[in-house]
Amino acid sequence: VILCVCLNAALDVTYHLDGELRAGASHRVASQLQRAGGKAINVARLLVDAGSVAAVLAPVGGDTGTMIRTQLAAAGIESQLIEVDGVTRRTLTVVDSRDATVFNEAGPHISEPEWALLLSTFDEQVSGADLVVLAGSLPPGIPADAYRQLTEIAAARGVPSIVDAEAQALALALTGHPYLVKPNLAELATVIGGPLTSPAQIAAAGRELQRRGATNAVISCGSAGLVAVSDSGCWLARAQVMTGNPTGAGDALTAALALGTLADMPWPQRLRDGAGMSAAAVADPVAGHVDPQLRAELTARALVEVIDLPERVA
Amino acid sequence: VILCVCLNAALDVTYHLDGELRAGASHRVASQLQRAGGKAINVARLLVDAGSVAAVLAPVGGDTGTMIRTQLAAAGIESQLIEVDGVTRRTLTVVDSRDATVFNEAGPHISEPEWALLLSTFDEQVSGADLVVLAGSLPPGIPADAYRQLTEIAAARGVPSIVDAEAQALALALTGHPYLVKPNLAELATVIGGPLTSPAQIAAAGRELQRRGATNAVISCGSAGLVAVSDSGCWLARAQVMTGNPTGAGDALTAALALGTLADMPWPQRLRDGAGMSAAAVADPVAGHVDPQLRAELTARALVEVIDLPERVA
Repeated sequence: VILCVCLNAALDVTYHLDGELRAGASHRVASQLQRAGGKAINVARLLVDAGSVAAVLAPVGGDTGTMIRTQLAAAGIESQLIEVDGVTRRTLTVVDSRDATVFNEAGPHISEPEWALLLSTFDEQVSGADLVVLAGSLPPGIPADAYRQLTEIAAARGVPSIVDAEAQALALALTGHPYLVKPNLAELATVIGGPLTSPAQIAAAGRELQRRGATNAVISCGSAGLVAVSDSGCWLARAQVMTGNPTGAGDALTAALALGTLADMPWPQRLRDGAGMSAAAVADPVAGHVDPQLRAELTARALVEVIDLPERVA
Repeated sequence: VILCVCLNAALDVTYHLDGELRAGASHRVASQLQRAGGKAINVARLLVDAGSVAAVLAPVGGDTGTMIRTQLAAAGIESQLIEVDGVTRRTLTVVDSRDATVFNEAGPHISEPEWALLLSTFDEQVSGADLVVLAGSLPPGIPADAYRQLTEIAAARGVPSIVDAEAQALALALTGHPYLVKPNLAELATVIGGPLTSPAQIAAAGRELQRRGATNAVISCGSAGLVAVSDSGCWLARAQVMTGNPTGAGDALTAALALGTLADMPWPQRLRDGAGMSAAAVADPVAGHVDPQLRAELTARALVEVIDLPERVA
């Protein structure tokens, strides 16, 4: 089982407009969707759809929390949902005839006892897990080094962790020696700095993530592809560039890398899968969902090339 | 008691952003508010704040409905809330550093038995009322002539109705002979047509509302003021033009006109009060609330002049 930890779960609401969103105007919502989300929940959905077994650990509260509980059960995802006093946040995506505009609520405050309960529940659950995915933002009240703490608990049980975080949460997670971190270019820039123009520059920054504690790093570079810096080499992987909704592409990459890690695939294959699955996610209007046929086609046509960098000095 | 019928109640959510809303971008919500709303509920709040007694009749459902129930009780507003199967809608107003962008959900579908229950509850409640306010949009499932039906039931009990509706709901309401209709210029244009540039033209269109069944009409013309066409004359009323949030100005006008009707004030005084109260509502960031001091000042300085039109032919 892949244990997906979603510290800032969300009810993802999508409003569809018939015309264009205009700042300062009044709009009629033509249709709407509500879907349990947050990065780690999206990853869990993709894993289950791909035939793997995923479990979600998340704090939830209020009526939005109840809806997440109901939806995860309906999706056949085992979950350990810790009831908290705060109300689970919503995210709103307004889709008009041109593109998507996103509003992210901050999330409920998590108290110290609630965080302690999350840690002890994680400690119980992780011994039965093969792999841990830690993905998404941290709600108010949770310590900035939460991902470091969870990574260390997992490591003490011999379970590797994949971390998808940004800024300080990522920087602190590195010191817990995660198996893999998966920043995008902007997140890499905030932690390591630039320039990050060429694949070699990006790989060199990935090497710095390794020096700071990560065993492996995969950096998503939008339409330029993926750069991987692993314990066994550096690669650039690219799939066909799709138009659509980039929200969720990172979660699809995380899911593919989790599957590749679990199966102990060679790195080039993990990256081909990652590039194909994230491109398929861009083409899908719903975050946390890909069309399996399109995914297979894009993966088959994805290209992986070696980036020539000095090998890592242990 | 003034019975305020809110067929499409809403939980009005406000997101405050630190920067500007940009279509296609991702935004962090800095703070948020949730408030029971819908036009007739805003009117009821203003009436209670002004020392009058208001009751709300509304269909509500889901967790948004529960929040409306809780908030109305806390505001000291008697309410007859009919539990329906659908979920009460939200409206979202995104306030950035420049202005307000609004997204209106359509509202739950109201079934035939639910509408029948609303009608019979209205019939019971209206005999104890002095005045009825019918304000706001109609949710899916409610017949287009709902306001006509309610106006006729009220009239059969000898209770006058004030109607704030748009388009077809307004056009059909007229045939129920409401005591007063209160369209804005755009709503008047959809029902009667133009040109609606001068006060005399607007008053002439108001006369047409009378010919179609309304006893009186007050047309709100934004910064140009109010035009009233009554059974005893026509007037133009203007208050100081305030900058701020025009959402809720119409509800403040309705509340002032309801108070004036209940007290049987001379029309010029009703209009001075309406102009002052709606100008004070523009200056207030929250729909359904005005500062009483500002309201008094703006009302004292409001100007009313006679519009010279041929008297109504009965």
